[in-house]
Amino acid sequence: MAESFDAVDIIRTKRDHGVLSAEQIAWTIDAYTRGVIAEEQMSALNMAILLNGMNRAEIAQWTAAMIASGERMDFSALRPVAGGPVNSSGSKPTADKHSTGGVGDKITLPLAPLVAVFGVAVPQLSGRGLGHTGGTLDKLEAIPGWRAALSNDEMMRQLQDVGAVICAAGSGLAPADKRLYALRDVTGTVEAIPLIASSIMSKKIAEGTGSLVLDVKVGSGAFMKDVTQARELAETMVALGTDAGVKTVALLTDMSTPLGLTAGNAIEVEESVEVLAGGGPEDVVELTVRLAEEMLEAAGVHGADPAAALKDGRAMDAWNRMIEAQGGDPRATLPVAKESETIYAPADGVLVGLDALSVGVAAWRLGAGRARKEDQVQAGAGVRMHAKPGAVVRAGEPLMTLLTDTPDRFERAKEALAEAVVIAPEGSRPDHQLIIDRIA
Amino acid sequence: MAESFDAVDIIRTKRDHGVLSAEQIAWTIDAYTRGVIAEEQMSALNMAILLNGMNRAEIAQWTAAMIASGERMDFSALRPVAGGPVNSSGSKPTADKHSTGGVGDKITLPLAPLVAVFGVAVPQLSGRGLGHTGGTLDKLEAIPGWRAALSNDEMMRQLQDVGAVICAAGSGLAPADKRLYALRDVTGTVEAIPLIASSIMSKKIAEGTGSLVLDVKVGSGAFMKDVTQARELAETMVALGTDAGVKTVALLTDMSTPLGLTAGNAIEVEESVEVLAGGGPEDVVELTVRLAEEMLEAAGVHGADPAAALKDGRAMDAWNRMIEAQGGDPRATLPVAKESETIYAPADGVLVGLDALSVGVAAWRLGAGRARKEDQVQAGAGVRMHAKPGAVVRAGEPLMTLLTDTPDRFERAKEALAEAVVIAPEGSRPDHQLIIDRIA
Repeated sequence: MAESFDAVDIIRTKRDHGVLSAEQIAWTIDAYTRGVIAEEQMSALNMAILLNGMNRAEIAQWTAAMIASGERMDFSALRPVAGGPVNSSGSKPTADKHSTGGVGDKITLPLAPLVAVFGVAVPQLSGRGLGHTGGTLDKLEAIPGWRAALSNDEMMRQLQDVGAVICAAGSGLAPADKRLYALRDVTGTVEAIPLIASSIMSKKIAEGTGSLVLDVKVGSGAFMKDVTQARELAETMVALGTDAGVKTVALLTDMSTPLGLTAGNAIEVEESVEVLAGGGPEDVVELTVRLAEEMLEAAGVHGADPAAALKDGRAMDAWNRMIEAQGGDPRATLPVAKESETIYAPADGVLVGLDALSVGVAAWRLGAGRARKEDQVQAGAGVRMHAKPGAVVRAGEPLMTLLTDTPDRFERAKEALAEAVVIAPEGSRPDHQLIIDRIA
Repeated sequence: MAESFDAVDIIRTKRDHGVLSAEQIAWTIDAYTRGVIAEEQMSALNMAILLNGMNRAEIAQWTAAMIASGERMDFSALRPVAGGPVNSSGSKPTADKHSTGGVGDKITLPLAPLVAVFGVAVPQLSGRGLGHTGGTLDKLEAIPGWRAALSNDEMMRQLQDVGAVICAAGSGLAPADKRLYALRDVTGTVEAIPLIASSIMSKKIAEGTGSLVLDVKVGSGAFMKDVTQARELAETMVALGTDAGVKTVALLTDMSTPLGLTAGNAIEVEESVEVLAGGGPEDVVELTVRLAEEMLEAAGVHGADPAAALKDGRAMDAWNRMIEAQGGDPRATLPVAKESETIYAPADGVLVGLDALSVGVAAWRLGAGRARKEDQVQAGAGVRMHAKPGAVVRAGEPLMTLLTDTPDRFERAKEALAEAVVIAPEGSRPDHQLIIDRIA
């Protein structure tokens, strides 16, 4: 680092609504990584950023500085499949998807093998769940034998041979982000759009994907509760990706109600396999196909028909190979929760609301999620829904089944669901559409 | 503490412009003292307070919580002097003064013995200088033998016998403030009016003074650069003191130019002694007398004539006794700097500007102040001025003498003074008045 700055000057600049220079930002992230900027200084700076914002250039520089804190991956050695797509450097094109997280969001599971069917490599680095949103790795770990941790070599081999990989992000990508996120988590500074955008995009850019589709969730079960904020986040991330040479598109999608009919781990794998078998809930299929189309288009594959690949078994073949490559048995029986309890419809009418946050919290409390990083999750726990918004229901009909190995958890899960269900007179319709907007 | 809260919830409340409850504030300060709230959490909260503010009730509760973190002093055992004033509990009344800090601000030195002349006890707990503003204790330590550290018993005895004491604040008063201030210093959160007001007032209320006069400085050499901010700080502090049962008055006074003709340690003692001998610079005398009148009035002594007590030697007698009581020799020769360098007027005209900050930084760089707490100060170092704004000067006439034991410091001191002097055509007048406003 050529230049040296003073941490307090930098904090004061942002506090007083000033703009930080590229050099100041590079120094800040580097000095934080080296311990020259203390945690309490970074947390004051984060709060100032949250309250006073950063402009596009600052966010891009902050993201670049986080990328520079660690290693970068490189997929240019991937050979194209015979007759398949080729990117501008003669390699197999890569496409990744990132969801900002929601309830019942198992889309990565069918999506990664589905996109791989068309000769595009999908390097899906994923995380574990914390709080009410599930984690992709937690879901897949319900499959006996499946392992999340791969070396970079194993990952590259699988991308070459199978085309899709879903695995844990190594600690080498944007390590500054990891520390910064842990700090934001305890200092009330998670909800800063510049910091969210740079956190997500630093990892995706460092990962080296050629194209990226962002699924920005909006609604009670999402991080962003309103469309304005979600759109700002999406626009920020699309600009960051595009400026870094990654073909980036974002969809704003509804998270006022859970995706599909399951929120948990094993039960979400089961539902994903239904989608890969050509069935499954309509919303999960719609979003999977739409995201696959976006990823393929971004990766240079035009006019592909991913819906057909779900129907004819090609996506299921890719799934089986992907799971097997990571030690999993795709035909094994999945774990089942020891105990269940049913929630019934309180009245006749149309189900117009099934609140995503409530279901997410219930699933979490049943054991599907974790409160702290070191907690274990239950593979069989979660909430199985029997009706989606729009369905006509009759009083006394089962609405949801709660699943857990530890029945003392039912009570608190039911508390979370107390206000989750809204039934309106027949003829009513829920007012949410699945895909709200597209930002490119 | 009956109730327990979550630190992140409290940070988020303030971040989102909410109002903290008395219970939340009490818990926050207590939990911070116990280490339950981490430094990085407190710094995020401080930044949110700085940017989003606190209402009067929150500031009062924050101050009360800081007072509750330590001991409270009690002056009710002080017996009135024969024929002197008596407060409502039959004791000797007490009055204190606090200045927010400036350049050449030696007012405490003549003021404390001057007020004591009238039978009012002056328990002046003071600090050391940091950065460009001098510290009262640093100045007095230029007197051979004088010691700043007194036990509470010694302090009480001296208040009884001499009536005035200027000593170091013990660590028992508002200890949470001490930690908080150190944190604010490194996290760019010093400049938050609610935190400044509660920091000052928690110590003064815990100290137990019956009345308090605040000298809130405004201008380049002060913490508050503009009158609006200074007035807000003054009003906040007056309200806090009044609500806590301390008779509190504030003056807003000018700090665009140094007070008096000296900025340093020994040279400020020398100037203070001139004032106590009935002479000294007009502005120092005016402010000393005005603050004494305010303190005496607040302490219930009406119609006193402090100006006369400066002229007739009573204040000097009290000074001599005060210095002797703390081991000092008031007649000893004061240390003199080994080296000096003179700055000359660059042109004929009227001196309309002599910038306080520039002079303060120059004195600091010459060795009169310290950059870090552990630094030593030079007793003889500083800046002696030969003209005040309003004076007619001739080109080549001496304007200032720089004093230090370490002549390699002259260069950087002169750099600080490069823009300090403004000379205007004859007939011009400086546009600052010493006493800007009074808030009660």
